[in-house]
Amino acid sequence: MDIAILLYDELTALDAIGPYEVLKLIPNSRVRFVGKTSGPKKMNGSALTLIADETLFDVQEPDILLIPGGPGATAIMKDAEILGWIRDAHETSRWTTSVCTGSLILGVSGILMGKKATSHWMAMNSLKQFGSEPVNDRVVRDGKIVTSAGVSAGIDMALTLVGLECGEQTAKTIQLGIEYDPRPPFDCGSPEKASPSIVELLRSRANK
Amino acid sequence: MDIAILLYDELTALDAIGPYEVLKLIPNSRVRFVGKTSGPKKMNGSALTLIADETLFDVQEPDILLIPGGPGATAIMKDAEILGWIRDAHETSRWTTSVCTGSLILGVSGILMGKKATSHWMAMNSLKQFGSEPVNDRVVRDGKIVTSAGVSAGIDMALTLVGLECGEQTAKTIQLGIEYDPRPPFDCGSPEKASPSIVELLRSRANK
Repeated sequence: MDIAILLYDELTALDAIGPYEVLKLIPNSRVRFVGKTSGPKKMNGSALTLIADETLFDVQEPDILLIPGGPGATAIMKDAEILGWIRDAHETSRWTTSVCTGSLILGVSGILMGKKATSHWMAMNSLKQFGSEPVNDRVVRDGKIVTSAGVSAGIDMALTLVGLECGEQTAKTIQLGIEYDPRPPFDCGSPEKASPSIVELLRSRANK
Repeated sequence: MDIAILLYDELTALDAIGPYEVLKLIPNSRVRFVGKTSGPKKMNGSALTLIADETLFDVQEPDILLIPGGPGATAIMKDAEILGWIRDAHETSRWTTSVCTGSLILGVSGILMGKKATSHWMAMNSLKQFGSEPVNDRVVRDGKIVTSAGVSAGIDMALTLVGLECGEQTAKTIQLGIEYDPRPPFDCGSPEKASPSIVELLRSRANK
């Protein structure tokens, strides 16, 4: 099972590392971090650097393709080379997946046309411009495309995917291994549950 | 607010990146990734590399100290220089924290003596040898020491910490920003909830 995670500058690290920590535990799998160029990629928000070991050219037909999101997604959405690589990889992939605004990158590449998908709650409406049908859910599957909500949702997506690909027993073993029995200190992780003032604050910051 | 996350070879990336994604959003904060030496650190389990930008010498009095866990923790537990640095940093820290088997590193450094703490469920009993009182909870606070359970629990720990340090409003804003409204596909993320066969499987793998 060949798993490719796209890296680029200014992505949100947890979008990539949450699913990585799950998918790397698929038996007989190999996770590769892929960039347009190999080398260091600066993550969104501070002094964190992840390394892309492989280039687009090195990774041609991954079984699982994962596109994380983050502020840097905007630049990737204009990068014809990366978008072409995604379209090509999707042709032969078993699963094409995204976290957060990674779904907008899938969208602009054209592969969400007529498909149900999700994204970060603040980016949900943008899916429509790519002919996708936004679904307000944590993990959305349409055929072999599996998209997930913002940042932390990649963990739920990856465990769901392992369940689909390898069966429940394997997924449950991985879930217990990473002790994923979440207990958020507050019940405010979606805009429906949070106070309107916090929703508004985040929207206004995003529009700056 | 100066935040130091220790990096070392063979740590479990999500232990570090989960809390990072939360703590980096504390207003007026700076997260620094610290290693015994600066440079690339190979994560547990596949081709992922994180970069330590700073050395122990560079980071002397962080406000928040975070020690992640993973298979590489065993080597760190024998590293007198790192253990001394942790003891020194703890003297002046506002918060000293760990994820997963990071608490065993805190333990061997001596600072959990007489303190309540938690760890990955498979490592919980090891806390006793350091004079710590193991508490089977997701996040355990004893004074300024905040420890958390395995791997994914670092996200809950970091949000709890932000609530304590900056107030609920800031913590809730961060939680909604990373859309942390977890929905695990299975209810098996702790040994009490998982089937005994899966618990046994993981224990036997760990003892190999």
